[in-house]
Amino acid sequence: MLKDYGSETLKGIHRYIPKKEPKKYLYDLISEYPDRGGKGFRPGLCIAACKAYGGTLDEVLDSAITLELLHNAFLIHDDVEDESFYRRGKPTLHESNNQAIAINVGDAMNVLGLYPIFKNREKLGGRIAQQVFLEVQHMVTESVEGQAMELGWRKDNIPTLSETDYLRMILKKTCWYTCMHPLRIGAIIGSNGSVNPDIFNRLGYFMGTSFQIQDDILNLIADEKRYGKEIGGDILEGKRTLMLIHLMGRCNPDEHTTITDFLSTPIRERSPQKAKLILEWMHRYGSITHAKITAKYLAGGALKEFYSIFSRLPDTKDKAFLESIILYMINRDY
Amino acid sequence: MLKDYGSETLKGIHRYIPKKEPKKYLYDLISEYPDRGGKGFRPGLCIAACKAYGGTLDEVLDSAITLELLHNAFLIHDDVEDESFYRRGKPTLHESNNQAIAINVGDAMNVLGLYPIFKNREKLGGRIAQQVFLEVQHMVTESVEGQAMELGWRKDNIPTLSETDYLRMILKKTCWYTCMHPLRIGAIIGSNGSVNPDIFNRLGYFMGTSFQIQDDILNLIADEKRYGKEIGGDILEGKRTLMLIHLMGRCNPDEHTTITDFLSTPIRERSPQKAKLILEWMHRYGSITHAKITAKYLAGGALKEFYSIFSRLPDTKDKAFLESIILYMINRDY
Repeated sequence: MLKDYGSETLKGIHRYIPKKEPKKYLYDLISEYPDRGGKGFRPGLCIAACKAYGGTLDEVLDSAITLELLHNAFLIHDDVEDESFYRRGKPTLHESNNQAIAINVGDAMNVLGLYPIFKNREKLGGRIAQQVFLEVQHMVTESVEGQAMELGWRKDNIPTLSETDYLRMILKKTCWYTCMHPLRIGAIIGSNGSVNPDIFNRLGYFMGTSFQIQDDILNLIADEKRYGKEIGGDILEGKRTLMLIHLMGRCNPDEHTTITDFLSTPIRERSPQKAKLILEWMHRYGSITHAKITAKYLAGGALKEFYSIFSRLPDTKDKAFLESIILYMINRDY
Repeated sequence: MLKDYGSETLKGIHRYIPKKEPKKYLYDLISEYPDRGGKGFRPGLCIAACKAYGGTLDEVLDSAITLELLHNAFLIHDDVEDESFYRRGKPTLHESNNQAIAINVGDAMNVLGLYPIFKNREKLGGRIAQQVFLEVQHMVTESVEGQAMELGWRKDNIPTLSETDYLRMILKKTCWYTCMHPLRIGAIIGSNGSVNPDIFNRLGYFMGTSFQIQDDILNLIADEKRYGKEIGGDILEGKRTLMLIHLMGRCNPDEHTTITDFLSTPIRERSPQKAKLILEWMHRYGSITHAKITAKYLAGGALKEFYSIFSRLPDTKDKAFLESIILYMINRDY
């Protein structure tokens, strides 16, 4: 079902991409990231939530297309900002073209991404369309706020972050746009506005944090081919993960100095040997195990929330799919 | 009047900027570019067009705020893409902070910039609000398309551009968002949707091209303090201006090779001496004079269009202001 919903969304994306010039450095590149085959969590969650609440694929598809386009735009800019090398098994857009072109392609996807929800008006009426538009606006706002927090931590090389700081940051950067808003938007459309979307916030928070921590763990221990990014890339990028925060709270002063020195070095001058050493310390100090336990704990919270919300709804394939997607997001190994 | 309308718009921008965290690397920076004091052409044109068609400042202000916010977002990303050092007399945002933060601030301004036109619904009703939204969508789309053309020319180091290529590029990159859409949106709101906005396209094209060519000339010959950017910066950035295209069509083969070699060198390794030499050639081959004549010629077209459109309207301060703004845009020396 994740695949089916993803492929409907991808087909939809292609319907929205103009078949005109400039192709080489714009419209051809706009389809590049989506065509690499993301997992399609966001449209999957959104479509399933809509159908679980009695709506149809047809009613929700345009909103799912918007979510996926904005997600890809966000990835392209995020990759430039993090100076990442790989995405979904291929060089990032700024590596295969250049930074300027990648920034502009992201901007173009952001504007293109608003056309589908603009069309909602025709199918869903003005009231629901407006509500969805404000959901999307809030989603992007939270994401850029979370991103600003993370980028600020890196710029100022803050050595004293707590787990609470981390969870607040990924609530903003990840949870809203990966889980909360896809569920909220799906349920708003499926219920024709009769559901209070705030009931999904705790579920989305638990899912999103669990998902992000799992994602960060995979970055350190996954199979590179299946994962599609360079293993340990997050350490080289200086990403403040739960593991790094855990390690920095427990390592000895010498190790702490080594880590802060490493983080204050410009990204392209950082030594891969030191990154490997930090990874070893994460293993030795139990930081990875700690993160795994935290992710499972949050996933438990997500399941509990799921049952309390969805037990009121009739049993449908989409409801079962939502349950399985929560388990899958947490147990995935790539 | 330009100042008045600009300051109303700036006050409006500040009303839309959330007074909350994250401040240091987000909301504080969002007001930085607008606070530097741009010329406010776009809101000026938009507000004056609205009032010339019988509307009020109150009806059009939110749309003017959107135009100015999106303009500033565009500048921030454009400055990153061009690796520019100065903007409005100060270091560019990516120079004073870093690239990642600048990209994210631009993204945040883009999403913030949509809230004002979303509010149009309350004052102007759904039909006009929708029309304005589509105008803004088209405006941003044209701008990113024009940007893609220009960035592609640089990336591929195309040596054979014609004046027609250049004019098509700035039609997309500059004219729509600097002139055509501000006028169109103002007139749509002022006339309550009774004016066909396409009547402004030729005027906006003539104004915008004249404005951009004048801007490019100033980059080469203006007083640095008043202009606010480094003089000759466009040459160092490898910007394809009318002057460069004119020069490359007329210089001798040795000079041509020097220029293409210069343009294929990474931007931060280009020799300022060579840039100076190219500037000398532009003077010697009459490229700057040619551009000045072209700008005046296009400005003449703009005035002719202005009279043919606006002679039907009653004489108002705003109509007179629009006429003078055309003259000012063309004759300005900073």
